[in-house]
Amino acid sequence: MSDGFTGKLAAFACGPIKASPLATEIARLSALDWLSCGRAGAAEPVASILHDLAKVEAGAAQATLFGLTAAPVRMAALVNGTISHALDYDDTHFAHIGHPSVAVFPAAFAIAQWKGKTLQQCLDAALIGMELSIRIGLWLGRSHYQVGYHQTATAGAFGATAAAGRLLELSEVQMAGAFGLVATRASGLKAQFGTMGKPYNAGIAAAAGVEAAQLIAAGFEANPSALEGPFGFGATHHGESNVSAMLAELGEVWCFETVTHKFHACCHGLHAALEAGLELDLAAPEIARLEVRTHPRWMSVCNQPAPDTGLGAKFSYTTVLAMQALGIDTARLESYSDAICADRRLVDLRGQIDVTADDSLSETQAVLSLLKKDGDRREASHDLQQPASLEERTRRVRAKAASLIGRDAAEQAWAVLAEEGSAAEFTTLFA
Amino acid sequence: MSDGFTGKLAAFACGPIKASPLATEIARLSALDWLSCGRAGAAEPVASILHDLAKVEAGAAQATLFGLTAAPVRMAALVNGTISHALDYDDTHFAHIGHPSVAVFPAAFAIAQWKGKTLQQCLDAALIGMELSIRIGLWLGRSHYQVGYHQTATAGAFGATAAAGRLLELSEVQMAGAFGLVATRASGLKAQFGTMGKPYNAGIAAAAGVEAAQLIAAGFEANPSALEGPFGFGATHHGESNVSAMLAELGEVWCFETVTHKFHACCHGLHAALEAGLELDLAAPEIARLEVRTHPRWMSVCNQPAPDTGLGAKFSYTTVLAMQALGIDTARLESYSDAICADRRLVDLRGQIDVTADDSLSETQAVLSLLKKDGDRREASHDLQQPASLEERTRRVRAKAASLIGRDAAEQAWAVLAEEGSAAEFTTLFA
Repeated sequence: MSDGFTGKLAAFACGPIKASPLATEIARLSALDWLSCGRAGAAEPVASILHDLAKVEAGAAQATLFGLTAAPVRMAALVNGTISHALDYDDTHFAHIGHPSVAVFPAAFAIAQWKGKTLQQCLDAALIGMELSIRIGLWLGRSHYQVGYHQTATAGAFGATAAAGRLLELSEVQMAGAFGLVATRASGLKAQFGTMGKPYNAGIAAAAGVEAAQLIAAGFEANPSALEGPFGFGATHHGESNVSAMLAELGEVWCFETVTHKFHACCHGLHAALEAGLELDLAAPEIARLEVRTHPRWMSVCNQPAPDTGLGAKFSYTTVLAMQALGIDTARLESYSDAICADRRLVDLRGQIDVTADDSLSETQAVLSLLKKDGDRREASHDLQQPASLEERTRRVRAKAASLIGRDAAEQAWAVLAEEGSAAEFTTLFA
Repeated sequence: MSDGFTGKLAAFACGPIKASPLATEIARLSALDWLSCGRAGAAEPVASILHDLAKVEAGAAQATLFGLTAAPVRMAALVNGTISHALDYDDTHFAHIGHPSVAVFPAAFAIAQWKGKTLQQCLDAALIGMELSIRIGLWLGRSHYQVGYHQTATAGAFGATAAAGRLLELSEVQMAGAFGLVATRASGLKAQFGTMGKPYNAGIAAAAGVEAAQLIAAGFEANPSALEGPFGFGATHHGESNVSAMLAELGEVWCFETVTHKFHACCHGLHAALEAGLELDLAAPEIARLEVRTHPRWMSVCNQPAPDTGLGAKFSYTTVLAMQALGIDTARLESYSDAICADRRLVDLRGQIDVTADDSLSETQAVLSLLKKDGDRREASHDLQQPASLEERTRRVRAKAASLIGRDAAEQAWAVLAEEGSAAEFTTLFA
């Protein structure tokens, strides 16, 4: 191992966990968030295609699938990874440049259910896997993403390997071998964005991690240096090789604490504006003009001025802010409909909203300036990077889960997550 | 599709086949060669690890595994791809920079057996897949290989997709989608060379092709432009983007005709010298001095002067030439033993052989200069790129197969390949 970092990652992945209370709690929240996205995603077209593949292969009933019964662990990881990212509504870590939950939880829960692990063992393994995927994302850096790789898939495969390998009780030497083996398989291109290939990228990361960990546990020998070094994964995949960022206070500081959850079922570029809108308590009858200032990047991504479809609404500042001002729940999938785009009240309100680019803002910031009909002026800004309190995050994730899978199911899942039960108890909630 | 080549590849993959008689015959030879490598490889340690994985997953008995019964097609492709490359004794295409058979045949035979296709349909699909993997290898070029990618795996995944997709009767539009989908998954690093990860690279290519074709057949939607274009597979994977080489006379000229088969169970760098040795009819008692000239690249790869293990013997000019002069069959796996390295006759003979680098030679050439004890001087050279006659190739592949799996099995397989039977008849010979 050229500069020895694979060994450090392996030691972290196999060692005793000393997670901060905050990281531990947020992992629990992300599990609820991931479960709701997976159950709601099971109704998407890509889910039935993956279900059919699982049925055609059949095999040992080792781990539960979202929306179906059970399949071998590798297939469960593939299917659940894909389905839970199908709505693109799962958690995001901006520095990782990816979605930690959807690559790691599917691997962790599949192995934990199969091997009869406790829920806490599963959550610990998933937390370690997500932390590692974030740190490998940092190591690969923006250059990796910019050239066309999807960190959710590439860095995610290493995180999935860590979680699966920990639950299979790999030794440190084996874990380093598993990282080396998955380096030959970790893949995923941004060229799939906008197609079913995007959620599939999460599924292949989870499945690759499970398979690599299984093979190493069975005695497979791979090159543990395949991640680092001149011809390693980073060098071949346009990585920035930011080793110091990757290893900084590993095991002491938890990058995972800054993961963000999505509270609106639309493009992430719209979320800061919607959060600022909540602060202004936008109400349609009061609005004379509303100005939105946002990072220039978003102007070409999610500034459709007058979409006429539910899908288009998800990429439109004027539409989602008008929805919010009309009291329509932007967290609900069903809110984004063709019908709402044709609603007279919404169409009128859109005309009162201006969107402008402001390069003094970061990609996670937005500023709203409201002129009320009574002449009052108010302004609010929001930065998605700014952490809310744990209480506030908990309240909102639970509300989101309730809107996705119904209040009873969401509260049942939250209760299971608070208990000292088995991982299998939680996976019974997948279908 | 930015410059439209994916559509052309898809049209070739789906269209009527107009293979040259030579390409058709060589595909048949490669099938025999691949079968022998697979059956002999089933005794390797990596085979039992993959067998165990298949047993743990279980599932539908769709396709036969080397050395075992049957598994789902994706698993069969993974297992058979890995096992058939385990000995590193399968065919090579130098311009492709890879091994065409081991990525493509496992996918083709798995789907053909499952779907009840004829042997000819299977061989046609495999030939098209291998031709495409070679051409995608050309498109990616040496830069892709040099940075650390293994074309057998990366280009091979596209070839496997073509073969599997053709046998699943994908339309041209679907085939382009399958190429786009597998672009997000095609992977494999040279960092695995020297470990079980190298043959696994062939297995993951075959499995990725099968899964991509299956998903597309079931309605999965992917980006058909994910192979070409600024953020496509080539751009992200250090490809040379040599579109003209890739498309040159596609469907008219068959690059596959220049595939080479290995006739010695050792490092490919030694083969040209061994072929020149055959021409000189080396005989130990006659040799006073023997000089080997070879490309400088091989000096650090396979010039161990006095190895004492069977593995070391596979990377030693002096040892393999001495074996040849002593009448020991260099085609047989068992010939490379620790015992032979300690044989007094061989040790003495090694001392009479000199190896020197000659940068006027290509990597596929070698020159032998023999001084006989009677004072006679003779010289012979060989270039692996220089094609032998079909008759000669046939004779030698059949002899190699016989040395690997026994004469009866080899001749039975060759007879089945000459019949107009089903693909399943051939796959009964896998176990």
